[in-house]
This record gives sequence, C-alpha cells and structure tokens, in this order.
Amino acid sequence: MKNVELMEKIEFYINRLGQVGLKDGIRWRCAYTKEDKAAKELFKSLIENEGLLASEDAVGNVYGKLKNSIDYTDVKKILVGSHIDTVRDGGAYDGAAGIIIGLLAVSETIKKFGAPKIPIEVIALTEEEGSRYAMSYVGSRAIVNGLMENELNSVDEDGISLKTAMLLAGYDPDNVMKAKRDDIHSYFEVHIEQGPVLEKTGNKIGIIERINGIFFIEVEIIGREDHAGTTPMNMRLDSLSAASKFMAKLPEVVAEISNSATATVGKIRVEPGSSNVVPKKTIFTIDFRDMDVDKLTRMNEAIQLELNQLKHQGFKVNCNLATSELPVDLNKELINLCEVVVKDLGLPYMRMNSGAGHDAQIFAERFPASLLFIPCKDGRSHSPVEFASNEDIAIAVEVMSGILKKLAW
Amino acid sequence: MKNVELMEKIEFYINRLGQVGLKDGIRWRCAYTKEDKAAKELFKSLIENEGLLASEDAVGNVYGKLKNSIDYTDVKKILVGSHIDTVRDGGAYDGAAGIIIGLLAVSETIKKFGAPKIPIEVIALTEEEGSRYAMSYVGSRAIVNGLMENELNSVDEDGISLKTAMLLAGYDPDNVMKAKRDDIHSYFEVHIEQGPVLEKTGNKIGIIERINGIFFIEVEIIGREDHAGTTPMNMRLDSLSAASKFMAKLPEVVAEISNSATATVGKIRVEPGSSNVVPKKTIFTIDFRDMDVDKLTRMNEAIQLELNQLKHQGFKVNCNLATSELPVDLNKELINLCEVVVKDLGLPYMRMNSGAGHDAQIFAERFPASLLFIPCKDGRSHSPVEFASNEDIAIAVEVMSGILKKLAW
Repeated sequence: MKNVELMEKIEFYINRLGQVGLKDGIRWRCAYTKEDKAAKELFKSLIENEGLLASEDAVGNVYGKLKNSIDYTDVKKILVGSHIDTVRDGGAYDGAAGIIIGLLAVSETIKKFGAPKIPIEVIALTEEEGSRYAMSYVGSRAIVNGLMENELNSVDEDGISLKTAMLLAGYDPDNVMKAKRDDIHSYFEVHIEQGPVLEKTGNKIGIIERINGIFFIEVEIIGREDHAGTTPMNMRLDSLSAASKFMAKLPEVVAEISNSATATVGKIRVEPGSSNVVPKKTIFTIDFRDMDVDKLTRMNEAIQLELNQLKHQGFKVNCNLATSELPVDLNKELINLCEVVVKDLGLPYMRMNSGAGHDAQIFAERFPASLLFIPCKDGRSHSPVEFASNEDIAIAVEVMSGILKKLAW
Repeated sequence: MKNVELMEKIEFYINRLGQVGLKDGIRWRCAYTKEDKAAKELFKSLIENEGLLASEDAVGNVYGKLKNSIDYTDVKKILVGSHIDTVRDGGAYDGAAGIIIGLLAVSETIKKFGAPKIPIEVIALTEEEGSRYAMSYVGSRAIVNGLMENELNSVDEDGISLKTAMLLAGYDPDNVMKAKRDDIHSYFEVHIEQGPVLEKTGNKIGIIERINGIFFIEVEIIGREDHAGTTPMNMRLDSLSAASKFMAKLPEVVAEISNSATATVGKIRVEPGSSNVVPKKTIFTIDFRDMDVDKLTRMNEAIQLELNQLKHQGFKVNCNLATSELPVDLNKELINLCEVVVKDLGLPYMRMNSGAGHDAQIFAERFPASLLFIPCKDGRSHSPVEFASNEDIAIAVEVMSGILKKLAW
C-alpha cells in the first residue's frame, strides 16, 4: 500500500490525537475529564474531515455515521472502531490506532465504492481501560447491556461517582439507557497486540479467535514477625520466604495444566517491611489467563492447593478469587471472512488468542464481533514508548476496508 | 531469689519507665525528644531513690554514681547498664530492663557489702536504636570514640540535624567530646535476648561470647515491563520471578557456608507494581549475619555470584553492600567470670552469640566489655508485646550483683 495521502493522514491523525491529554509530559485521557472531552472533540473533527457525520450518544461514545444518501432505517449497522481513552501515562496507539483505522477504512472504502448496502458506523468508545473507575468497558457495556445503577454509583479515588462525573461532563446519567442498542449487525475492532508475538513471528495481522479468560487471586500469607539477627533460620515462619518458593514454582504449576497460559505476580508487599525484621505478612496478586475455562478452573485449584500446603508449616493463608472473567469466543464466520481478506491481500498473518481484554468481548455477548491485532514495537503498551508503524496501520486500514467491502457492498 | 522488696521494685520500675514515651498507645522514646527527656528525668529519680548520685554527660547519657565516701579519683570505673531509648512502637524491656537491672544490682550489692574498692557507675545510654537518626549507638560512641562533626550533621526525617536536636534539648553540641572517657575499667550489659533460644532451651542466662557481624546488601534486579496477558511466559524478563528463585535459594546459599548464619529479605518492592504488568524492577534488601568474618565475606561473594548469574538471562543486576559491621569478640576474662558466678548460683545457662548489635560492641572497641542475655517471651522484641518476667529480671540482678561483688569488693 503506497497511498501517500493515506500514509500522511495516518501520521497526522495519530500525532494529533496523541497530543491530546498530555499534561506535564504524561498522557492520560480518562472518563469524563477535560482531556476526554478534548479527544472526543478532536475525533469528531476528524470524522467530519472524512465526510462522515459526527455525533455522541448518551454516555459519550462518539459515532461517525454515513450521510443520509440512503435510508438505512430498520437495517442493522456494522460498527468499526475501538476505544478513545488511555491508561495513566499511556501511549498514542492503544485504542487510538483502532479508531483511526476504523475511520480511514470506512472513508477509503466509500471513496472507492460509494454508499454501502449495509450501513457502517465508526465508533470511538468511551472508557475501556478502567483507569479512573474500577470498571472497564464503560462505553461498550452501555451499548450492549446498558449501565446499571450500582455501576453509576462507583467512585473514583477522589470519591466522585461515575454519575457525578457524567453530570459534570455534560451527560445526563438518567439517560444512560438511551445508549443501549439492538440494531447492531456486527462489531469490528483493530488493536495493537500489546505483546511481542506478531513482531517476533513477522506476521502483519493477528486474527483473534478467542479472548482469554482472566482469573485474579489476591493472596495473603501470614507467618511470624521475628528479629532478623536473633532468630535462627529453623525457628522462623518467614512469609516472604514461603511466598518466594511459591512464586518460583508458579510458572510450572500453570504450565502443567496449559502451556499457553500466563501467570503473573505483578504486585507484592510485605509487613512490617523492615530490612532487619522477618516479614510477618506477604500480600501479592496472581493474574492468570488462558483460553480454556476448564483449565482456568483447574489452575485456580492447583494454585490454591499449592498455597494451602503452607498451612502445614504453620502459616495462615488467605486466597480471594477476586476476578474470574471467562474466555470469550469471537464469531467464527467473521474470523473466516477476515482470513479470506488477509489471504487475498497476501499478508503474513496468524490466528491467535488475545491475552488482554477488549471491547470486542463485550459486543460478543450479544452481537457477532471480530478483533484483529497489528504488531507493536517490542510488544510494549500502556506506556509512552508504545509504537506501531504507519505502514502496519496502513495495512490494517486496507484489511478492514477489504472486510467492509465484502460485507457491506 | 525470693526478695519481695526487690520483686516489687522491679515491677514498679519497669512499669513506670514503660509508661514514659507513650503517645496514642505507641511507645517511642528517641533521641532528644521530650519523651527522651521524661525518661531520663524518671531514671534519675530512680537512681536517687537507690541512694546513688544522678548526673548526665554532655550528650545525655545518664549516670548513677556512688556518693563520695571514698576518693575514687584515678581509679578506673566499672560501668553497668544499657540504653534508655526505644524503637518506634517499641516495648518496655529492650534497653529498659538492662538499666534497671544495672541500677538494682549496684544498690543491692552496696546494701549488703558497703562501698566497693573499684567504683561502679550505673549508666543509661542515649539513643542506641537509631530510630530517629540513621546512626545507632550514639551514647556509647560518644563515650568510647567521641562523636564526629559529620555524625552531628546527620538529619532526621524532618531535616533536623542531630546538632540542632541536641541544642533544642538543652545540650551544647560543641561540648560532645567531653562525654568521651578513658577511665573505664569494664562495661557490663544485660539485655533481653530478642530471640527464642533461651526460652526454648530453658536457660535463664545467655553469656555472650561474640556479637555477630552484620552485612547488608541492597539489590536491584531489572528485567522488562510487559503486559501480563499478552506476553507469553517464555518471552518475559520478569524481575520478581527471578528474585523469587533467588530468595527461595538464599537459605541454602548461606547454610552451605555457615549453619549458624541468618539471612533475611525484610523489604521488597516491585515496579511498576501493577497486578496486570510483569514487574520490570524488583528491589530488595538482604540482611545476613554470622560470627565469622571470613564466612560473611564468602556469603557476600556467594550471594552476589548467585545474583549475577541472572545477567546471563538478560537481567541487569545491581548489588550494593551498604553495611559490613564486623563480628566483635567480648572479653574472655569477663566471660569466664560471668560463667563462674552463674554456675555458683546453679542457674541453667548457655554461652551464645548475639545476632543483634548492642552498645557492648562499641565499648569492646576500647575496654573489656561483657553482655548477658535473659529470656524474653516468644523471642519477641521491638514491639509492645515484648516481655521478660520479673523473676527472670530478678535472676539477672542477682547474677550481676554476684559479678560486681567478685570484681569490685
């Protein structure tokens, strides 16, 4: 794809959107802030620039719709896009690349083939990351299931409820159910992989078959606080030493059940946390993911069994399975359609699973949904260094354009 | 020892001193605060109550000296005592038991045998714990070596220098060298064990032969930050996983060199510290102690060798040996003298090493010094639950009285 104009647009759109939400060198666009508003205003201007009609729904999802040359009433719509928010200190591609690819794919295809038979809407979803409120996928859940009262009452770090934040940003929380839709034909999303596999294997497109289930355990191992100098090694009940042995074994424990699973201890804290005191308490998290729900259940059992064996040595162990998001299958017909298009273009690609959660999994609850990955540098994301090349983004525009052409024209 | 009056005094003195420095249920007597001053005033009143003369030196060490029935000029003095300060949220026995045992041993012996040939001074040392300033043993170091200018300039968490704190508490920092002494015959200290060995073995007295050396390494393992869901296990450089394997192996690494050594990771922190991010950086401390300096040196090498092997896997490893306090031998003649007295009293005792640092090691640099341990409940210390029984304290008074009798009368 050597479309100079398209490449320049990608460069310009990514850079412009990437500059929104920067403050003191940190990029953070989260729900219902002025950074969020600025990003949406900018994206609406890009939509208009591409000849589409910009609008917002009741919760702040931004739409780019076709101008009414054809009456599409009573026809289900194809949605294509991703989310517009970022994590704190995030990058310029996670979410952003997806909405720009969606927008350009729609406008490029219309430019070539005129108005489609099935209407297409570009969508920039509000708040997928959950970086302000504990809940993720606010925009897609508002569309698919509607936001619930208890969700509207959840509060951020400053005690401001989602409801209040909406009000302050100019949205009426009494109207949130107006964002819910039944008229969706299908949902398409392109996202950076956020992992190293495409880059390492030289593939340009990942066609996602399944979004992995995510289980999340909070662990507390309680031993005894002792003086680091005066308590002989064999008289200790060192919670960190016990946790270390567990953590060292964790990769094996999950690999015995699934060789594609991931397991991560990302957060750890000891009490009292003094260099000359044997740690009484070690508190840590285990995030483990797999595509198979039975295997996740067995991993959960195996992890807890392993931890509970510490009780025989005198430790107290508390395990709390705080999250158990089940794996989600994406639509097989759309997967096949994507594969046909990618093959036709002669692109190196692979079918794969997603280890991260995405809006596509929310849409998949009620509608045919599809998710494609593009490579990102060193697999990095959720960081200012995250990067996808203009060339790879242009390839995704071409792929998405091909998919839309086959489906909607 | 069924001396009812002595037992009541122990009960009363321990309780009275234990109440000084309590604020909002937390006991903390640290250098040059009003809690410190209150404790010193109280201890001076106890000294007077025992018929001795109370005084303070230039840095706030409290002395209880004999009234001048005999001219002791030009005679070297025996010192007996411990420190008067506590750690933050400390107990009523660490240090406190030692100064009360010293005071009562001196007064009991004088009551029975009159004035000694060698003068004895009770001493309550200022600031052993280093809970306000990074440096420990302020009082004993002022006596043994004199405090240095750079030490006086060290600052607390609020940026107040030791010099300023002294001034505010009514001491003249220009006079600190006046606390330094050459006229010391010997130093005797009784301390709670702060470990479980005496209690578990049923011994009433531990005669310390050596104070263990303390080495302290600060470690940083740097890997790579990755998404916990999208980065396959075999493509990670997980610093916490690497640290876990090391920590799990640490007890073996030191045990291969010395079976009496201790090694403790008491403090650990990961970055970025998010449950769904593979930790890029793991920072932790290793405190390891032994009685043999060669073994400590070999342990240091073995630990760093073990850690540096992680470099072959792609990790960056930084090790900083922040502390290397060498082991200190206590005076052999005094050890033998103590043993004779303890044996004569028919007490169960053991010779042992101290895993914790004590003022006695500072005195040992220039003077004959002796350290005895008494049992404490469950080996606990540096905590409000620390406890030694009145009976065990009375035994120590009797032992110390016997030692002083043999030495000074």
